[in-house]
Amino acid sequence: MISQLIKGIKEKNAPIVVGLDPMLSYIPEDITARCFAQYGETLEGAAEAVLEFNKGLVDAVYDLVPAVKPQIAMYEQFGIPGLLAFKKTVDYCHEKGLVVIGDVKRGDIGSTSAAYANAHLGQVTVGSTVCTPFDEDIATVNPYLGTDGIEPFLKVCREQKKGIFVLCKTSNPSSGEFQDRIIDGRPLYEWVAEKINEWGATAMDGDYSEVGAVVGATYPEMGAALRKMMPKAMILVPGYGAQGGRGKDLKGFFNEDGLGAIVNSSRGIIAAWKSETYKGMDYKAAARAAVTDMQADIASALKG
Amino acid sequence: MISQLIKGIKEKNAPIVVGLDPMLSYIPEDITARCFAQYGETLEGAAEAVLEFNKGLVDAVYDLVPAVKPQIAMYEQFGIPGLLAFKKTVDYCHEKGLVVIGDVKRGDIGSTSAAYANAHLGQVTVGSTVCTPFDEDIATVNPYLGTDGIEPFLKVCREQKKGIFVLCKTSNPSSGEFQDRIIDGRPLYEWVAEKINEWGATAMDGDYSEVGAVVGATYPEMGAALRKMMPKAMILVPGYGAQGGRGKDLKGFFNEDGLGAIVNSSRGIIAAWKSETYKGMDYKAAARAAVTDMQADIASALKG
Repeated sequence: MISQLIKGIKEKNAPIVVGLDPMLSYIPEDITARCFAQYGETLEGAAEAVLEFNKGLVDAVYDLVPAVKPQIAMYEQFGIPGLLAFKKTVDYCHEKGLVVIGDVKRGDIGSTSAAYANAHLGQVTVGSTVCTPFDEDIATVNPYLGTDGIEPFLKVCREQKKGIFVLCKTSNPSSGEFQDRIIDGRPLYEWVAEKINEWGATAMDGDYSEVGAVVGATYPEMGAALRKMMPKAMILVPGYGAQGGRGKDLKGFFNEDGLGAIVNSSRGIIAAWKSETYKGMDYKAAARAAVTDMQADIASALKG
Repeated sequence: MISQLIKGIKEKNAPIVVGLDPMLSYIPEDITARCFAQYGETLEGAAEAVLEFNKGLVDAVYDLVPAVKPQIAMYEQFGIPGLLAFKKTVDYCHEKGLVVIGDVKRGDIGSTSAAYANAHLGQVTVGSTVCTPFDEDIATVNPYLGTDGIEPFLKVCREQKKGIFVLCKTSNPSSGEFQDRIIDGRPLYEWVAEKINEWGATAMDGDYSEVGAVVGATYPEMGAALRKMMPKAMILVPGYGAQGGRGKDLKGFFNEDGLGAIVNSSRGIIAAWKSETYKGMDYKAAARAAVTDMQADIASALKG
């Protein structure tokens, strides 16, 4: 799957993933009004609004970017209807040829991680029928439980040609509380990076492995060090834009060939229509303009 | 919520939580056959079988135990119908007066953790309506992202009188890979324990705080040390029974008053009917017998 993601990045010349993390406040009122009129001010109404909003965003940007990253928490908060909107979003993005990174940050002990891996990337067998529950292409995974929590995901990656991004150094302000603590002379996130290399070696897909790393744009020096430590791992870089990461911070996340990283922006794209910069545009046009501007910002940073 | 859990433990004299982690292979064939006949060999059929199985288990043991712990991965693997069975299981357990610990191990950056906290423990506002998505009482949470990933859960705990159990030292074989690494002379899990104390101090509920810790029965010495380190935190102890933890390993997890810990068993109870010990019993009678035996095992360990 990583090779397919890289192919998309090259074809579209855009190491960009659009974070589909809808908050109700990002959705134009005409959409919410219509959905609430039809389904009431209910979880169903909210979920319908989210789905319609997402479809508009995807229509607006699918030719510009290789991938989307729906954050499942934003759907889970609307209960069962919300998760149905998540599933329909995954399917719609597939129809548009996009790679879908499920930002699910799951992780548990062995048999339970197997259930999560099957839920999001694989299949389950019911009687003699093979069913595909959520069908994302790549999932984000939490490493705190160690190898036996990751191995079931690796198995699915190898068998079904899927991928994972393992949390390494996250973009949030307090990520350092545990991740930066020094163990035998090196921060915890570097020990996680070492395991990412180990896990990745068992699931290669071309030049890169199916096991990538999540490293926040908000920590550019660490990103540059981790880039060198994990030559075969794609880095998923959240934190660009609204969280404070800028184009000029990103260069170190990439390899010399301009590959090796894919940068996520959520709010900066999907809520662009609410910002001063894109004032007056409808949400689709604003999202498209924000993607184009982000593409130029990154290209200029990589040249510089 | 923690005080309500402790009240239940005292009343039923059972520091026991039943893990509702159904695998299809645990479910008696007459149930799966009936559900597959009605809904097909589909995610719906599997989910219906899980729900019917759960209701039978809950009917069999609700008067013996204070709480249940559905592991959401086991439902997520059956997609939307599976998650609907999860929600219906939560509701059914509430009807029976049980405290529901959602074993969801969620954790993300601030705004996203807020969405998870609202999804599982709190509410979301849609227009002018307040909706309750999953409505568990307590959720398990992953600490890897640090305080700003935990704070939104604390907020909901304080406002809605809910609780969390934070992963500290997990029961699985490779939990030590990161959790046991030494930082300034102490293992990572002790640094997490220190944060659990800090977080818990902001959300007290009687003698204990709404912020408990997950510590595996499979590591009894660490459990005893952590018990002393976190005097105000309830410990949720997985790993008893099928994972290898035994009654005599548990004493150190409890305080002198016999409180302070609640021990989970999943397979050992819900799949008891498939074991040699309870051979010939139906699954409900076997589950009830397994709970009674577990209660005696723990009581004898606490006396010893």
